[in-house]
Amino acid sequence: MLKTIGIMGGMGPAATADLMIKIIEMTAADSDQEHIPMIIDNNTRIPDRTAAILSGGADPVPEMTASAKRLEAAGADFIIIGCNTAHYFVPKVEKEISIPVVSMLKETALALREKGVKCAAVLATDGTVKSGLYAKALSAEGIEDIYPTDEQQKLLMSVIYDYIKKGITDPAKLPHDEMLIMAEDLKSRGAEALIMACTELPLAFDLTGIIDDTCMDPTRVLAAAAIREAGAKLRLEITM
Amino acid sequence: MLKTIGIMGGMGPAATADLMIKIIEMTAADSDQEHIPMIIDNNTRIPDRTAAILSGGADPVPEMTASAKRLEAAGADFIIIGCNTAHYFVPKVEKEISIPVVSMLKETALALREKGVKCAAVLATDGTVKSGLYAKALSAEGIEDIYPTDEQQKLLMSVIYDYIKKGITDPAKLPHDEMLIMAEDLKSRGAEALIMACTELPLAFDLTGIIDDTCMDPTRVLAAAAIREAGAKLRLEITM
Repeated sequence: MLKTIGIMGGMGPAATADLMIKIIEMTAADSDQEHIPMIIDNNTRIPDRTAAILSGGADPVPEMTASAKRLEAAGADFIIIGCNTAHYFVPKVEKEISIPVVSMLKETALALREKGVKCAAVLATDGTVKSGLYAKALSAEGIEDIYPTDEQQKLLMSVIYDYIKKGITDPAKLPHDEMLIMAEDLKSRGAEALIMACTELPLAFDLTGIIDDTCMDPTRVLAAAAIREAGAKLRLEITM
Repeated sequence: MLKTIGIMGGMGPAATADLMIKIIEMTAADSDQEHIPMIIDNNTRIPDRTAAILSGGADPVPEMTASAKRLEAAGADFIIIGCNTAHYFVPKVEKEISIPVVSMLKETALALREKGVKCAAVLATDGTVKSGLYAKALSAEGIEDIYPTDEQQKLLMSVIYDYIKKGITDPAKLPHDEMLIMAEDLKSRGAEALIMACTELPLAFDLTGIIDDTCMDPTRVLAAAAIREAGAKLRLEITM
């Protein structure tokens, strides 16, 4: 009997659907009934996480806790969250429920350690970088974390907010050369892996053709961890 | 305050995610918080609907009812289901809950009536056709229903099961000419609209380039109805 996955979603809705689709596509299943039961709480009432961390915006913890309790009451055996930044608030939410939260950050760090990675570059929003979330998760697995330069970080924020979030997905319009130089620079500084720690980045790197096997997508890692935790199998061709 | 949409899903999981994505993409919203709260019960324990209707398979009603009750308990204000065939069992499920089910079939018939359509062709699986579900919904709005010939119905089943469900989505491999001849034949027989009444068909018609404004996608119609019912607005460019 498969366990039921609870997805705390709405942060944002499209990233929530993307996590759900990755779980479906990565599960070894030949019929509807072999797929994993999931309950998704697309709670769009959760206030902006970055604003709460960086500029004193409304506290997301009460709505996140309400979602966690709904998922637990509906029969979820564990909870996953497809938003990197939201993990900042997970310790407070976990105290209010009796089912575990499988952490996207911890699973990503574990997957990197399994690959033998000693140094990883964190590509994320200013909020995620400043929260120190990945620094902590990587450090716990003995992995060094490095970051883009200030100028490269501005490029990343532009790719996320001025291109992908605005729906500009024409590869010819994306700043391919600057992104490639940044990726090469991070690797020359010692990064054996690039963590795409913002849900817009795997798409941006995929569109520009820069993506390769040093790029780690935490949403895919989390989907794989949830499939294993639920007791199902990954499709044979899936590797992290 | 927006109402909460409950999606009874898992029939199948990919169609459930597709319905969720259509609601997100069709909602006029500029931030996570302007999107509609949704609870999705991806209940993969629901037995096959077609087998239950046509060949005495296990009854899906108990698991569908369990899903409906979970959605109601979790705060859903109304329920939608992205599977045409599952609507056969809705009357029995509705008796066990106190929130309404917004019917994909009824909304499709209403949308066709609003467009002034008097005669529509139903393109669906053998199970949906034989259940008479669309015949009843269309008849209630005074719309005549016509169907593919036996040979064309075999072509449709092949497109659904031998191509799309098996992941063959290369337009060059799909039977474009036969599909086009069928579409033209149905129109020459009086159909002013073609209902893509199986979740695989909009993709098949889109891939082959046969899709035009006579093609009606019930999933899109249901998404639009759910957005209105929740109290949100459709993006301006959306038409049915």
